Amino acid sequence: MAHKHGHGRERIQFANAEDKQEFSKYPTKAGRRSLSRSISQSSTDSYSSAASYTDSSDDETSPRDKAQVNTHGSSDFCVKNIKQAEFGRREIEIAEQDMSALISLRKRAQGEKPLAGAKIVGCTHITAQTAVLIETLVALGAQCRWTACNIYSTQNEVAAALAEIGVSVFAWKGESEDDFWWCIDHCVNTEGWQANMILDDGGDLTHWVYKKYPSVFKKVRGIVEESVTGVHRLYQLSKAGKLCVPAMNVNDSVTKQKFDNLYCCRESILDGLKRTTDIMFGGKQVVVCGYGEVGKGCCTALKALGAIVCITEIDPICALQACMDGFRVVKLSEVIRQMDVVITCTGNKNVVTREHLDRMKNGCIVCNMGHSNTEIDVASLRSPELTWERVRSQVDHIIWPDGKRVVLLAEGRLLNLSCSTVPTFVLSITATTQALALIELYNAPEGRYKQDVYLLPKKMDEYVASLHLPNFDAHLTELSDEQAKYMGLNKNGPFKPNYYRY
Amino acid sequence: MAHKHGHGRERIQFANAEDKQEFSKYPTKAGRRSLSRSISQSSTDSYSSAASYTDSSDDETSPRDKAQVNTHGSSDFCVKNIKQAEFGRREIEIAEQDMSALISLRKRAQGEKPLAGAKIVGCTHITAQTAVLIETLVALGAQCRWTACNIYSTQNEVAAALAEIGVSVFAWKGESEDDFWWCIDHCVNTEGWQANMILDDGGDLTHWVYKKYPSVFKKVRGIVEESVTGVHRLYQLSKAGKLCVPAMNVNDSVTKQKFDNLYCCRESILDGLKRTTDIMFGGKQVVVCGYGEVGKGCCTALKALGAIVCITEIDPICALQACMDGFRVVKLSEVIRQMDVVITCTGNKNVVTREHLDRMKNGCIVCNMGHSNTEIDVASLRSPELTWERVRSQVDHIIWPDGKRVVLLAEGRLLNLSCSTVPTFVLSITATTQALALIELYNAPEGRYKQDVYLLPKKMDEYVASLHLPNFDAHLTELSDEQAKYMGLNKNGPFKPNYYRY
Amino acid sequence: MAHKHGHGRERIQFANAEDKQEFSKYPTKAGRRSLSRSISQSSTDSYSSAASYTDSSDDETSPRDKAQVNTHGSSDFCVKNIKQAEFGRREIEIAEQDMSALISLRKRAQGEKPLAGAKIVGCTHITAQTAVLIETLVALGAQCRWTACNIYSTQNEVAAALAEIGVSVFAWKGESEDDFWWCIDHCVNTEGWQANMILDDGGDLTHWVYKKYPSVFKKVRGIVEESVTGVHRLYQLSKAGKLCVPAMNVNDSVTKQKFDNLYCCRESILDGLKRTTDIMFGGKQVVVCGYGEVGKGCCTALKALGAIVCITEIDPICALQACMDGFRVVKLSEVIRQMDVVITCTGNKNVVTREHLDRMKNGCIVCNMGHSNTEIDVASLRSPELTWERVRSQVDHIIWPDGKRVVLLAEGRLLNLSCSTVPTFVLSITATTQALALIELYNAPEGRYKQDVYLLPKKMDEYVASLHLPNFDAHLTELSDEQAKYMGLNKNGPFKPNYYRY
Amino acid sequence: MAHKHGHGRERIQFANAEDKQEFSKYPTKAGRRSLSRSISQSSTDSYSSAASYTDSSDDETSPRDKAQVNTHGSSDFCVKNIKQAEFGRREIEIAEQDMSALISLRKRAQGEKPLAGAKIVGCTHITAQTAVLIETLVALGAQCRWTACNIYSTQNEVAAALAEIGVSVFAWKGESEDDFWWCIDHCVNTEGWQANMILDDGGDLTHWVYKKYPSVFKKVRGIVEESVTGVHRLYQLSKAGKLCVPAMNVNDSVTKQKFDNLYCCRESILDGLKRTTDIMFGGKQVVVCGYGEVGKGCCTALKALGAIVCITEIDPICALQACMDGFRVVKLSEVIRQMDVVITCTGNKNVVTREHLDRMKNGCIVCNMGHSNTEIDVASLRSPELTWERVRSQVDHIIWPDGKRVVLLAEGRLLNLSCSTVPTFVLSITATTQALALIELYNAPEGRYKQDVYLLPKKMDEYVASLHLPNFDAHLTELSDEQAKYMGLNKNGPFKPNYYRY
Repeated sequence: MAHKHGHGRERIQFANAEDKQEFSKYPTKAGRRSLSRSISQSSTDSYSSAASYTDSSDDETSPRDKAQVNTHGSSDFCVKNIKQAEFGRREIEIAEQDMSALISLRKRAQGEKPLAGAKIVGCTHITAQTAVLIETLVALGAQCRWTACNIYSTQNEVAAALAEIGVSVFAWKGESEDDFWWCIDHCVNTEGWQANMILDDGGDLTHWVYKKYPSVFKKVRGIVEESVTGVHRLYQLSKAGKLCVPAMNVNDSVTKQKFDNLYCCRESILDGLKRTTDIMFGGKQVVVCGYGEVGKGCCTALKALGAIVCITEIDPICALQACMDGFRVVKLSEVIRQMDVVITCTGNKNVVTREHLDRMKNGCIVCNMGHSNTEIDVASLRSPELTWERVRSQVDHIIWPDGKRVVLLAEGRLLNLSCSTVPTFVLSITATTQALALIELYNAPEGRYKQDVYLLPKKMDEYVASLHLPNFDAHLTELSDEQAKYMGLNKNGPFKPNYYRY
Repeated sequence: MAHKHGHGRERIQFANAEDKQEFSKYPTKAGRRSLSRSISQSSTDSYSSAASYTDSSDDETSPRDKAQVNTHGSSDFCVKNIKQAEFGRREIEIAEQDMSALISLRKRAQGEKPLAGAKIVGCTHITAQTAVLIETLVALGAQCRWTACNIYSTQNEVAAALAEIGVSVFAWKGESEDDFWWCIDHCVNTEGWQANMILDDGGDLTHWVYKKYPSVFKKVRGIVEESVTGVHRLYQLSKAGKLCVPAMNVNDSVTKQKFDNLYCCRESILDGLKRTTDIMFGGKQVVVCGYGEVGKGCCTALKALGAIVCITEIDPICALQACMDGFRVVKLSEVIRQMDVVITCTGNKNVVTREHLDRMKNGCIVCNMGHSNTEIDVASLRSPELTWERVRSQVDHIIWPDGKRVVLLAEGRLLNLSCSTVPTFVLSITATTQALALIELYNAPEGRYKQDVYLLPKKMDEYVASLHLPNFDAHLTELSDEQAKYMGLNKNGPFKPNYYRY
Repeated sequence: MAHKHGHGRERIQFANAEDKQEFSKYPTKAGRRSLSRSISQSSTDSYSSAASYTDSSDDETSPRDKAQVNTHGSSDFCVKNIKQAEFGRREIEIAEQDMSALISLRKRAQGEKPLAGAKIVGCTHITAQTAVLIETLVALGAQCRWTACNIYSTQNEVAAALAEIGVSVFAWKGESEDDFWWCIDHCVNTEGWQANMILDDGGDLTHWVYKKYPSVFKKVRGIVEESVTGVHRLYQLSKAGKLCVPAMNVNDSVTKQKFDNLYCCRESILDGLKRTTDIMFGGKQVVVCGYGEVGKGCCTALKALGAIVCITEIDPICALQACMDGFRVVKLSEVIRQMDVVITCTGNKNVVTREHLDRMKNGCIVCNMGHSNTEIDVASLRSPELTWERVRSQVDHIIWPDGKRVVLLAEGRLLNLSCSTVPTFVLSITATTQALALIELYNAPEGRYKQDVYLLPKKMDEYVASLHLPNFDAHLTELSDEQAKYMGLNKNGPFKPNYYRY
Repeated sequence: MAHKHGHGRERIQFANAEDKQEFSKYPTKAGRRSLSRSISQSSTDSYSSAASYTDSSDDETSPRDKAQVNTHGSSDFCVKNIKQAEFGRREIEIAEQDMSALISLRKRAQGEKPLAGAKIVGCTHITAQTAVLIETLVALGAQCRWTACNIYSTQNEVAAALAEIGVSVFAWKGESEDDFWWCIDHCVNTEGWQANMILDDGGDLTHWVYKKYPSVFKKVRGIVEESVTGVHRLYQLSKAGKLCVPAMNVNDSVTKQKFDNLYCCRESILDGLKRTTDIMFGGKQVVVCGYGEVGKGCCTALKALGAIVCITEIDPICALQACMDGFRVVKLSEVIRQMDVVITCTGNKNVVTREHLDRMKNGCIVCNMGHSNTEIDVASLRSPELTWERVRSQVDHIIWPDGKRVVLLAEGRLLNLSCSTVPTFVLSITATTQALALIELYNAPEGRYKQDVYLLPKKMDEYVASLHLPNFDAHLTELSDEQAKYMGLNKNGPFKPNYYRY
C-alpha cells in the first residue's frame, strides 16, 4: 500500500495489537503481495460496537467446514452459527430504533420498489447497523449477497440473522486472510446470479472483481464506496482511465464530513477517555493536535466538561478559528511538559515524537483520534530502556527508567474505535447515504453518470438529512413561492451552492 | 435620495431583479433613474462605527463650496473640515492597535514596495479602519484617490486625516446623491493621473468608470470587489462578456464567510440587543430564523448567556446541524406566541409576516441580523390600526389596539450595523484580504488572470489568516519534510483542498 | 468611614469622576464631618439606567426655589419639573413589563391590603424600577414619602410622575449635599404624618432619623435595608445595643447574592466592555481577579464568547472551583504581561498595582466589576510621567513614556454601573424582596422580631422567586402528600435547610 | 440479605421512618431484625469502580474458612486471597497518581506524625482509593483495622494488598450478611488493641460498637462519619443525649457538596448513559427532575453535548436558577411524551410514576442519579402486562403490550454507581477530608469538641482544597498585610463567613 492520503479522516480497522501483525504477516508469509495490497482501510465506524456485542464462541470448527441450513431450507451462506439468528435479530431491532431514516425509506418499498431488479454485492462491516441497511435494500426490491470488509468486525449473531432471512452472507468474526478472500469470492461468484451494483468499504471487493471477474462490470451500473482508501483507489482508476463504471464517493459527502467527524468525535472523545482511564476532565490540561472537524469536535466536548484545551495546527485558517473559539494555539514542544492529556487528530504521522514523549510529565495520557496509528510514534516506545505494563484492556503504562509513566491508549490506534462506541444514529446517516447512492446510480438515466467518481448530488445530501429530522421532531419551514423566487431557489432544494461550507 | 439604509453582510447572491427594485425606487422618486441603479449595496460593516463616533457638525456649508488646503499646501481633496485631521489621526491610531496584520504588511514596504507604481482608485466606507488600509497601500508604494461608497458612513475627521497626509479624499458624511457621484467623478477624473487598479465596495465606482471613462480600463490591471452586490454585477458582466479586466471576489473568501459572518455575529447580537433594550438574556425564549453562519453565531452566543433558543430552517442539512447543536427546529408559527425575541438571519424576505406579528406576545422583541430590511415585513406594520411609538433611538414600540406592544429594532434593518459595533479585528481580516487581492492582481504575470471573476487563491487566504495569528500570540506548527511528503503537501501550503469546508 | 467590608458585593454610586470629588469636598467645605460620614454606599443597581435615560435639563433654578403643584392640587413634593410626569409615566410603564412579580403582588391589594396603615418613608435611587416598587406599596395600602439615596441617580421625569400621582417625592438629579439632607429632612419631618416603616438604601435616612428624630422609632415597626454599608451599620448598632427596632437585611438574601451577583454580572461584563471598547472577545486573554459570584458570572460569559480566561484567587475553595470549571488559577504577576484584559472582582483593594500596570502590554484593558474603585490602584497612575488621554466617555488611555497605552475604564469604578445597564428583571427581584420584607415586618405578630438584624425567612425568599417564575412560563412541581412526608417537608416550603448553598 | 443496592450520594437527611423500612424489610425476610436496622446506607461512591476492576473468582471457599498468612507472617486479617496482593498494589499505585493531596499529607508524617498513637477502626468501601487513605493514616502514625461497609464493594486484590502490608483487613466481595457483621466484629474486638478513633461510612460500625462494646467509647476521641444515613443517626443520638463522643459530619462539608455532587455528576451522567446505551446526546430531549447540585451537574454536561434539557423542580429558587441558566422548567406530565431521556435527581420518591412511564414514547431511557432506587417507581413496572427483557448488563427493556419499549437503567438504582465510574480525584477530596477530620479530632485540645456532631472547621475545608490545587498547577494569591486588614481577614484564612454559599 504505497500511499495513504491525509485529507479526510480514515477510520482504520485494526482493533488490537495482533491485528496489525496479522495483516503484515499474511502477505509476507504467503508471498501474496498482490492480495495484501488489497486488504486495507475500510471505514470501520461500527467496529467497536461489534466488539462489544459479540461473544467469543468456543466452537473452533471453521464455518467453511460446517453444513448449515436456515429455517427456510437455504444453505447459500456461510456464517459462524445460524442458530444465533434470534439473538442477532434482537440486536438488529435495537439498532432500528435509532435508524428511523432507513425505516422511512422502506416505506417507499411498498409502492416504488426503486431497487427492484437490483442485484447488490456488498462488502462492509457486518453489524446490526449494516443489517438494517441490507434489510432496507431488500425491502426496496434488491437482492443482496454480502461479505465482510474486515476479518474481525463481524457480529456473528447478526450475520446469522441475515442468513436466516435469506441474505447470502459470507462472514464471521476472526476470518483468516484466506477466509477473507474465500468469502468475497463466494459472494461474487455464484451460479445464476450476477451483481449489477457494488457497495464497497475499503475497495477489496471492487479490487477482487476487477482482478477475477472483470466481465461482471459489463452489467454493473455503479459502485458506491465509503472509505478514504477505497475512494482514493477509484480516483486512481479514473485518472488511469481504467474505471469502467460510475462510482459514488460517499466518504466526502457533507453528511459524513460535517456530522460523522464533528459530532461523533464530540461525543466519543469523552467516552473513550472515561472507559479507559476514568479520568476527571475538570481542570485537565489537554493539547489537541489538529483543529479540523475531528479536532473541533474533541475540543468542544473537552472544554465543555471543564478541561483547559490548547491546539496545535499547521494551517493558519484553522489556527485562527481555534483562536476565535477560545483555544490557545501552541507548538507541541512548548506545552508538552504541562499537559495531562495529548490527543492527535491530524491525519499526519509522527505528530507526537519520542522527544515529546520523553518530556511528558508523569501520568500524562496519550491517545489518537486521527487517521491511523502513526500519529503517535509508538514504535519509538518499543525500546529496551522503557517498560510496558498493560494495566487494563487498551491501556498501557510506558515506564521510563526514572519511574515516570506515560499512559498510552489503544497503542496509538483510533481511540473511538478501540475504546468507545459510535452512536447508531451517526451510522444511520452514513447508511442512508449509501442506500440513496445505490438508488441514484441504479435508476439514473443513461448518460447522467459517466465512468467517473461522483459526489452525491446536494439534493440527495439534503434528502438524507431530511430523513433524519423526525428523530428530533424537527419541523422544516417551506419556502413560499414568492420567497423561492426571491432567493432564486427551487422550493424543494437544493438550497445552497456547491461551495457552501456549512 | 432621502434614505439609504445600511446593507451589510449579504451572504447569498440573490441580488436579482426584485432586489434592485428596492433600491431603484428611491431614485425613481427623485427622477434620476440612471444614477439610481448604481447607488446600491455596498458592504457596510463599518457603518455603525462611523455613526457612533462622528459628531454632527453645525457647519452647514457644503464641502464642495469650501476652499481647503492641508498643511502641505495641497487642495486636491474635498472633506468636511480639514481641521479635524488631528482628531481623525487619533481614531486611526486606535484602530491600528487591532489591525496589526496590516501593520505587518507595511513592513514589506521598506524593501519590496509591491504596489510601487500602483494608482488605486477606491470607493469604500471611509472609517478609521479603512484609513489603516489606505495608509498601508500607500506604504506599499501605491498612490491612492478615494471616495465613499455610502452617503452616510464617512467619518469626517478620518477623511480629514487622510487628506492631511496627501490622500485625495472626496467624501463627507451626509452627501446628497448628487454629491455622491460628484465625489466619485472627482476621484476618477483628474488631470495627469490615471488609475490602474480599482478597489470597490458596492460596484458604484466600477459602474461609473464603465459608464463615463471606459478607456480607463485599458490601463487597469484589475478590480477588487467586496460586496455581494458588486460581485454579482461583476459575474453578470463576465457572463455577458463585458468584463474587460480581471476581478477578484473578496466577498466569498473563507476569511469573510467563516470569520466575519460567524464570529462577528456571535458577538454583535448580544451587543445590539443590550444597547437597545437592556434585555436580560437568561431564560429568554428566542427563535432564530436561519441557521447559516450568521444564525449559528447568534445561537451560540444567546445559548451561552442562558437564552432558550429554537431555530427555523428551510435547508434540512442546516436543520440537522441545529438539532445536533441542541436547538429545537420549529416552524415560526408553532412557537411565535411563546417567544420573547425573534431574530431573522435568512437572507430571505417576509420571513416574519404580519400574521406572525399579530400573534406575538406583549413585549416581544423583533430584529434582523440578516441581509436586508425585508426579512421582517415592516411595511405591514405601517397600518392605521397600529400605533408606532419611538421609545429610544432605533427602538419602536408597535402598539396593537388591545395595548399589546411589539418592540421593533432598527425598523427591521440590520441590527448589528444599526445598533452595535463591528470589532476592528474583523475589519482587519477583510481589509488585509483586500490589500492582498490588490497586490496579487497588480503583480500577477500576464495571463494568470483572464477577464473573469476570481476567488483569492487559497494560499493567500492562508496568508491573511497567518498575519492575524500574532494578535493571539498563536504559534503555528511547521510540517517536517517527512510529514509534508506523507501528506502530499507543500510545507508552505496550501494545506487544504479547495472544497474543504472548515 | 473607617471600615469597608469585603464580603458581598458593594455597588457604589459614583458614576463619574467629579462624583468622588463632590463627596469628598462637601464635608471639607462645610465642615460637617458627622454628616459626611453618612453619605455613603447605597446600592446603586439602577444608577446607570438612570444615567442613560435622564436628559439634562437647561433649567438652572433649584427645585427648592420653585413652586410646583400637581394636577390634583398637591404641592407636598419637590422635584425638578412636575411637567415631565407624562414622560416619566411611560418609563415606568416600560419598566413594568419586566417587573411582573410586583404587578402580581398588587393583585393582593384588592383584597388584603397588607400594608394598610403603613406609612413608609423611603430613601433609594429614584428610577422607573423604584417607581414600580413604590406604586406597588401604595397599591398594597401604604402611604409613601420618598427621597433619593444618591445625589446623581434620580430620574427627574420619574420623580415627577410619582409626585403627580400623590407620592411625596423630594429628589432631583444633581442635588448638592445640602439639598440631599434637606430632602431627607422634608421627607421625614412633615406635620401630621409620622412614618412607621423605613426602607433605606445606604443607611443615610436611618442615620438622619437616629440623629434628628429619634422619637420616630417609637412608632416604627421595622427598617428594611438594601446595601452592604447600611447593613453593616445596622449590625454595628445591634452589637452596640443601640438598634431600637427590628431590621431586615435584604442584601444577604439568596435572591440578591445568587441572582443579582451571578447572573447580572454574567450579562453586564460583556455589555460594559463592548460599549466602551468595541473589543472582540474571541481569543482574548483575560484575567479575572476573584472567583466569587461576580467573578463566576464574568468568567462564564467571557469563556462562552471565546475569551481565554484565567483566574486569581486567595481562597483555595474558590480556586478549586475555578480549576474544575476549566480556568487556570494564576498569580497576577505571572500572567500580566500576556493579558489583553484585566478585570477585578475581589472586593479588596490594590489588587492591580502600579507594578502590574507597568508590566501590562500595549492596549491592555483594565476594569473593575468588584466592590469599589480601589481594586485598581488608579491613584498610582496619576503621576507626572504618565499621560492621560480621554478617548471616549468612560475610557482613558494612560500613556507610558515609551508610548505604551493602557486602557482604563470608568477610572476603576464599577464597570457595569458606569458603562452598561442592569436588567430591569434583576431589579425586580430585589424590589420584590424589599416589598415582602416590609410586609413581613409590618404584619409580624409582636415578639416575632426583636431589636435585631434579620435575614428574610427562607419561605419568603422562595416566594420572591416564585413570583418571578411566570416571566419564564415556568411550572413548578408540587409535592404529593406522600412525597412531602417522605422528605419531611411542608408542601408549601421552605424546601431547603438554612445552610443550603444553592 | 439477598440484595443490597448501592446507595450513594444522598443529599438530604430524610432518613426517616419509611426509609428505614426499605432496609428493614430485607432482614425481616431473613428474620434478623436487630441486625438489619444497621446495614444501611453507606456512601458508595466507589462502588462501581470496585465492580469494574474486581474479577469474580472461581474459588468458592469462604475466606472465613481459609488460613492465610502474609509474607511478614501475620494472619490477623481475612481477605479473599492474599496472593492477589501484588495486583492490588498496582491498582493502589494507579490511584495514587490522582490522589496527590493524600501523598502531600504523608510528607507531614516524616516529622509530625499527627496520628501517632491513634488506633483507628474503619468501616468503608475497600477500594484502591480507600487504600490510599488507609496507608496515609498509617504513614501519619496510626494503627488501622478495617472492614467493609458494603457486602459487594470490596476490591479483593486491594484488600489483599492492605493485608500484605500489615493492615488488619476483614472484607471480601460478596459477603453474606452474617459475614458482614462477623467482619465488623473481628475488626473491633481483638485482644490487646483498642480503638481510639472511628471512621465510619453508613454508621454500621458505630452501631455495632454502641451495641456490643460500649465501653470502647471511653477511649474513643471521636467518630468521623461520611454518609447521609450515618450522619443522621449521629444527630439522632445527639438529640437523644446518647452521643458519648464528638463526631465529625463529613457529608455536609463544602468539598463534598459543591465538588462531589456537582462536578462528579457533571462527568458521570454522560459516562453512565454512554456505557449502557451508546446514546448520541446531540439533539436529545432530556428532562432532569431536580435542579440541586446533582441536577445542575447533569444539566451542564448534557446541554454542553447538545442535548435539549428541561427541568422539574419543587423549589422556586432552584427553579429560577434553572430559568436563568437556560432550561425550561416544566411539570413532568407536560413533557413526558416528547422526552428521549428522563433522569431523576431529587432525593424524593415516586418522582417518575407508572402513569409517566405509560406515557413515555418508544425507546425512552429512564435512569436515576439521585438518592435511592425509589425515585423511579420501578415496582410499578413489575406487573404482568409488561415484559422485561434484559438487553445488556444494567439495561432492561420494559415492553408494553403495544410493543413500546422503555429502557430502564440499573433498575432505577444510582446510574453513576452502577454504570459508570467516579473519578479518583473526587474521591481524593473526600478521603482527604476524612483524614483531616481524624487528625482534628485526635489532636483537638480537650473541650474544643463536646459530645456533639460537628462540621469540619472552614479553615480545614480550605486546607483540603489547597492540598488539591497542585494537581492543577494552580497558584494561590496571598493577601498583603494591608489587604488582609482592609478585608478584616486573617491572611491564612478562613476567607469566607460560614454562610457563604460558594
